Amino acid sequence: MYYPEPISKLIDSFMKLPGIGPKTAARLAFFVLTMKEDTVLSFAKALVDAKRNLMYCSVCGHITDVDPCQICSDKQRDNSIICVVQDPKDVIAMEKMRDYHGLYHVLHGAISPMDGVGPEDINVSSLLTRLQDEQVQELILATNPTIEGEATAMYISRLVKPSGIRTTRIAHGLPVGGDLEYADEVTLSKAIEGRREL
Amino acid sequence: MYYPEPISKLIDSFMKLPGIGPKTAARLAFFVLTMKEDTVLSFAKALVDAKRNLMYCSVCGHITDVDPCQICSDKQRDNSIICVVQDPKDVIAMEKMRDYHGLYHVLHGAISPMDGVGPEDINVSSLLTRLQDEQVQELILATNPTIEGEATAMYISRLVKPSGIRTTRIAHGLPVGGDLEYADEVTLSKAIEGRREL
Repeated sequence: MYYPEPISKLIDSFMKLPGIGPKTAARLAFFVLTMKEDTVLSFAKALVDAKRNLMYCSVCGHITDVDPCQICSDKQRDNSIICVVQDPKDVIAMEKMRDYHGLYHVLHGAISPMDGVGPEDINVSSLLTRLQDEQVQELILATNPTIEGEATAMYISRLVKPSGIRTTRIAHGLPVGGDLEYADEVTLSKAIEGRREL
Repeated sequence: MYYPEPISKLIDSFMKLPGIGPKTAARLAFFVLTMKEDTVLSFAKALVDAKRNLMYCSVCGHITDVDPCQICSDKQRDNSIICVVQDPKDVIAMEKMRDYHGLYHVLHGAISPMDGVGPEDINVSSLLTRLQDEQVQELILATNPTIEGEATAMYISRLVKPSGIRTTRIAHGLPVGGDLEYADEVTLSKAIEGRREL
């Protein structure tokens, strides 16, 4: 036991966070000692509040402190479009764009047989219920451009096809500001495939 | 406001920690939501406990939850040697070595005129008091091998010289497992200067 107990407990707590090893945890713990007591107390409160007061929206599955979430209960938004994403963080990314005014549906994962994640393990059934109840005209499949994300998008589009709702997939191609020279072959091939007339 | 309030507050708290930007803070905050409630509560408690229950040892300045600290109050330790370090983390590093059984003195900084840190801003006066009171025979100056650390070591050694106490400086040279090829000139020159007969 090199550290006094209160600090070793704090180091252990920091080490439970992803990407934080013993050295970083010790650095953070020692930094906490130099912080103002008020700041530390509000940090502790924020931890507990976030854990206790946040839940998943019963409609879209996004993270929220009120149910249904602010996006689902916003009358200004276009409820004829639902954008399907894998993760609550993807909703945040979409909202930052400020260009999309429809609703969301968070799957909390993607189909991945390798990891034992099947269609029943992600938030798909509630999506189908939503599609029956609401007047949805378009479903944008914005799962990640990975094998799992593609498989999930394919799976959902096949499920939804019979209902006649338009299902679209976000475009794959070169990221803006990227460099053709450094693009991988698959991205480049998708970019050519998805080319549009000017 | 993209995030529900409880999570944006938690993100703000994480961002106050060193080396944690908005993206990492968001990642950590979302991870906290997936942690068990018990773990989050004990994390919050560890934060508050560390801030409230830790203090600096009134003798050596090391961080501790009892005063004097466990090292200062350990009768087994050799109280004829004091190792002077800049930071409580340096004490931890020394203790990990398991080779040193003397006492410590933590300066909480180093003399750095560029940053406006003078001898009166670091924990030197209490060191001098200790040297008068205790039966110290050797003072090991283990400040960092930087300009500030060297200056601090020189300053303390000059202050202590008249008292007749042996003052030593830790060796500079190539780190074990290092590579001569990649050593900088100053380190190499110090390694040659400090060479010893085999």
